[in-house]
Amino acid sequence: MALRSLGVELHCRCIQTESRPIGRHIGKVELIPPNSHCEETEIIATLKKTGQEVCLDPEAPWVKKVIEKIMSNSSRR
Amino acid sequence: MALRSLGVELHCRCIQTESRPIGRHIGKVELIPPNSHCEETEIIATLKKTGQEVCLDPEAPWVKKVIEKIMSNSSRR
Repeated sequence: MALRSLGVELHCRCIQTESRPIGRHIGKVELIPPNSHCEETEIIATLKKTGQEVCLDPEAPWVKKVIEKIMSNSSRR
Repeated sequence: MALRSLGVELHCRCIQTESRPIGRHIGKVELIPPNSHCEETEIIATLKKTGQEVCLDPEAPWVKKVIEKIMSNSSRR
C-alpha cells in the first residue's frame, strides 16, 4: 500500500482490455510504460460519469487516436 | 473527496509545468482532457523513484515525444 501510494505497482494492473471505442466517455487516461513489475505498456482510462477504471489496448487504433486527440486539443487553445 | 475518488477534479491540478526534459524519470503519465472544471489539457507525470507528481506542458515537444514513445513501445512487443 505504501509503495502503491508512491505510484509503484507490483504487478500488471490490466487483465483484459476494452475493445469497444469508448473514447467520448473517458475522463482521464493513465499511461504506464513497461517496468520491472509489468512488461507491458498499460493504458487505464477513468470513465467520466462512473469513475470506473477501464484498461485499453495500447495497440488499438481507436486508443491511439484518443491519445492523439487529447494531445492535439491542447495545442488549439 | 468522494468526487475526487471518482476521478473527478473540481479545479485544474497544475499551477506550473516542468520545463526540463525529465522523460527517463517518468514512471507513469496521466492525461486529463479539458473538462467542466478545467479548460486546459493537463498532463501529470509520476516520477519513478520518488512518486512525486509533476505537471508537464502538453505543448512541449519533449512531452509529446514521451507520450509517443510510450505508445510506440507497446507496438514493439
